[in-house]
Amino acid sequence: MEAKGNRASEKAGRVMDGPTNPMVTPLLTDLYQFTMAYAYWKAGKHNERAVFDLYFRKNPFGGEFTVFAGLEECIKLIANFKLTEEEISFICQSLPGSCEEGFFNYLREIDCSDVEVYAISEGTVVFPKVPLLRVEGPVAVVQLLETPVLNLVNFASLVATNAARHRLVAGKSKMLLEFGLRRAQGPDGAIGASKYCYIGGFDATSNVAAGRLFGIPLRGTHSHAFVSSFTSPDEILEKSLCSSDRSSTCEDFVSLVNSWLNKIKWSKSLSGIFGETNQSELAAFMSYALAFPSNFLALVDTYDVMRSGVPNFCAVALALRDLGYKAVGIRLDSGDLAYLSGEARKIFHTIEKEFGVPGFGKTSITASNDLNEETLDALNKQGHEVDCFGIGTYLVTCYAQAALGCVFKLVEINNQPRIKLSEDVSKVSIPCKKRCYRLYGKEGYSLVDIMTGENEPCPKVGERILCRHPFSESKRAYVVPKRVEELLKCYWPGKSDKVREELPALDDIRDHCIKQLEQMRPDHIRRLNPTPYKVSVSAKLYDFIHFLWLNEAPVGELQ
Amino acid sequence: MEAKGNRASEKAGRVMDGPTNPMVTPLLTDLYQFTMAYAYWKAGKHNERAVFDLYFRKNPFGGEFTVFAGLEECIKLIANFKLTEEEISFICQSLPGSCEEGFFNYLREIDCSDVEVYAISEGTVVFPKVPLLRVEGPVAVVQLLETPVLNLVNFASLVATNAARHRLVAGKSKMLLEFGLRRAQGPDGAIGASKYCYIGGFDATSNVAAGRLFGIPLRGTHSHAFVSSFTSPDEILEKSLCSSDRSSTCEDFVSLVNSWLNKIKWSKSLSGIFGETNQSELAAFMSYALAFPSNFLALVDTYDVMRSGVPNFCAVALALRDLGYKAVGIRLDSGDLAYLSGEARKIFHTIEKEFGVPGFGKTSITASNDLNEETLDALNKQGHEVDCFGIGTYLVTCYAQAALGCVFKLVEINNQPRIKLSEDVSKVSIPCKKRCYRLYGKEGYSLVDIMTGENEPCPKVGERILCRHPFSESKRAYVVPKRVEELLKCYWPGKSDKVREELPALDDIRDHCIKQLEQMRPDHIRRLNPTPYKVSVSAKLYDFIHFLWLNEAPVGELQ
Repeated sequence: MEAKGNRASEKAGRVMDGPTNPMVTPLLTDLYQFTMAYAYWKAGKHNERAVFDLYFRKNPFGGEFTVFAGLEECIKLIANFKLTEEEISFICQSLPGSCEEGFFNYLREIDCSDVEVYAISEGTVVFPKVPLLRVEGPVAVVQLLETPVLNLVNFASLVATNAARHRLVAGKSKMLLEFGLRRAQGPDGAIGASKYCYIGGFDATSNVAAGRLFGIPLRGTHSHAFVSSFTSPDEILEKSLCSSDRSSTCEDFVSLVNSWLNKIKWSKSLSGIFGETNQSELAAFMSYALAFPSNFLALVDTYDVMRSGVPNFCAVALALRDLGYKAVGIRLDSGDLAYLSGEARKIFHTIEKEFGVPGFGKTSITASNDLNEETLDALNKQGHEVDCFGIGTYLVTCYAQAALGCVFKLVEINNQPRIKLSEDVSKVSIPCKKRCYRLYGKEGYSLVDIMTGENEPCPKVGERILCRHPFSESKRAYVVPKRVEELLKCYWPGKSDKVREELPALDDIRDHCIKQLEQMRPDHIRRLNPTPYKVSVSAKLYDFIHFLWLNEAPVGELQ
Repeated sequence: MEAKGNRASEKAGRVMDGPTNPMVTPLLTDLYQFTMAYAYWKAGKHNERAVFDLYFRKNPFGGEFTVFAGLEECIKLIANFKLTEEEISFICQSLPGSCEEGFFNYLREIDCSDVEVYAISEGTVVFPKVPLLRVEGPVAVVQLLETPVLNLVNFASLVATNAARHRLVAGKSKMLLEFGLRRAQGPDGAIGASKYCYIGGFDATSNVAAGRLFGIPLRGTHSHAFVSSFTSPDEILEKSLCSSDRSSTCEDFVSLVNSWLNKIKWSKSLSGIFGETNQSELAAFMSYALAFPSNFLALVDTYDVMRSGVPNFCAVALALRDLGYKAVGIRLDSGDLAYLSGEARKIFHTIEKEFGVPGFGKTSITASNDLNEETLDALNKQGHEVDCFGIGTYLVTCYAQAALGCVFKLVEINNQPRIKLSEDVSKVSIPCKKRCYRLYGKEGYSLVDIMTGENEPCPKVGERILCRHPFSESKRAYVVPKRVEELLKCYWPGKSDKVREELPALDDIRDHCIKQLEQMRPDHIRRLNPTPYKVSVSAKLYDFIHFLWLNEAPVGELQ
């Protein structure tokens, strides 16, 4: 999968793998990055040192927080950024024939050794306007990076945030499984979703490729097709099952199950609930149990959950128990999940009581039918007995909002601060190479993020700091931080002598994300009417923004 | 990019490339496909011959049609389907330790030589319930294919449909560019979108990687950052520009532009409209024109469209014209596109007239700010002067509906038809290995799709055929077709002696799609209240569905 190892960087004497998806190459960019590179080169501007900020303007899903993800893949791209001869010849064909040959020689030379990348740690909770990445380097090279870096951050952060939101509404005690592969936006829409949902707090995925690439735990049992592929228990030829401790063998597991099914049917407390169950389903459950006696989890809604699926499951589970195995549970994939999970739970408890099966009442119930934040919330409100949620389509495609709008804006070139104006104030960029800090209050919660110019002194613990809204004159507040955290760290020093932050392991990123969310003031992350987190600039930066703004905006004439 | 060529099939003595994305391997599947494969194998059922239908239940985007796409990638996966030793050892680690070694030997052997795939041609307009693919083969192998095939068809068909809908509302005469790479759902969410938007009727993409992989035309010029990277025309050191016919050289293009800018400012018909324009923008435009004199297209909204961008563009365009070059046009990326395009057009016409510049009024206007079907429709209603639309986020992420719900259902095993029931009638599957036909009426439009049992006679031209709604007793109609088209063709014969349909070239798929849409009755494809297209079953299949349904459904007892 890491076919681009040969492009590895030699920084710090150590090879860094290429991006997970081998399709991520320097050509994964917009054509205009190459036309601009040519125009910069032609104007002799290509090596001017530029600083670009990558940030978003609005949190997704109507919320007030975002989980930053995708950094590792960006750094892997940057570390291995080098055009091949074949790629250069394709660019040559794609640009107008009048382009000079010298440009293609220039393309042959470029890599990211002259680029520096400062970024917030992956898995951090982040807010609008604050740069997630600050990329500095020769303007032509940094522009080539714009599109792939945006692509790698946008969906990663969106889906990690979506996963975190699902985790917040499901609660800590529930198991959350990502089941989105079949409905995701293409093969690595799926693989990316598996990775970033795990960062956002999911426990496992069904996606085997993602399990192999990233070591994410895998989960899965069987489908409706498995159930309907059987017609009757007569199909089962090999009926023997060894007991869990290998001390004995049941020669006819099918009969054992059938005897349990009879007991359930005629039991006093369950009397009249169950009639004839579906025999193809029963055969499928028995076959699955014979294959996986220690991992029996049955999908119970192929024909009828309460009249067929649940009693068939219970009969097989009780037969397994006779042989020392503990069944895992059931999965519901349709219908009223609150009601059905409650009814199934009642039956598990009744069986625990009537047949003296300790723990049977706690048999696990998984639910997996078109779930999303809203349905999880509705289930919570109605009350339910689900222990584990399998979530697919709405999670991995970010159905509620399918894109995050990260942008990549020039903030400085040749040490000259630059601004992009817009009639929409929220679209005006914040100029200058900046430093970014998170200020914490006495309760341990973060209070505000503040951006300062590169050379301003760092905010100090215990010192009174004026935090200003970047665009609104009247919005400002004094803060005396109990703790100050610098947000941007050097993840790619290029050939500078700065120390490169190590890319953490996936599980560490996930732990960081979970801890970050625990440290947020609850009103910022609640589903309903969350409080916006404050993002500010220093007084000095505020003044400079507005000076530059006036300088660049044309003066109108009313007629 | 086709790293899996070594897995190529030998069918017909000819090697078929692997999927475009090397991450598409047999592991790109749900874990439960492997647990089921083990359970099938353990029960001795793994080689039972199964037939699965891939279909969707509801057209996306509130419409009444869908464009089928993704077939080529499915066939490339199937042709190269073979587990490597490394993959098998990962599966071995991922399944419970109790799994028998014989199963992994079985996995070593499997490929798709025993699988047959029948499919509708890629780019065809399709409707709910009709199988897009029918996959037949050993049940365990076909189940392994379920997840990747769904993944490859779902997003492909969704985004091709989205593109087709954008084309329908934009009209045939407009140029449509796909600009979605930076906001797409991951790297190949972007590459896939570029491919399938082209199939759906787009003209070009900004995505260089997609251009190289698929030969899609590329488009792109420059960004806001390019404009704001300049500070003033003093930066331009190399000011000479050779005329288009190489007969003369203008030594100071900067002065030539400035003299035009003055003429525009003081022109009678434009008098008072323009004041001082932004000098960094002017410098950027001049630089871009010097680099690409034959391809000058300027982004005019970095500072102020009408007060700066348009006059700066006109001055550069008129200077270029003095040297025999024809400027391409402007791009608007913010603001009121209907109004701004109209105002810019007026100025182009005024300049054509006042300065005697034939054709200048027709200078191309591209628009590209958060466009989607609705905004295109609103622009049409307001009236606008845009010639070319660049569409990104809403197109490639299918923002209006981020997923298509294709399913893969078992319809027959061992020649036994199977049905999946559901309390929701729309979720009941249509059993049996089927044939599917499209019946055309005398006006050339298609009237109805009909599914029949495998062995029923083919509907004949001129014969009266009863078409029944599969689930609604009262809905039926007689049709006398003027033309009958069989929809499912053999795209993968496995080792059978059927002839394999060739996979068409991308441009042929695109042409097919465009022609298909032209042949649809307009009320089926209109945006507002489209008429549902009829999908039916033969009388014989109808009867069989309902016989099987009664047979499998448990009889309830009211208490």
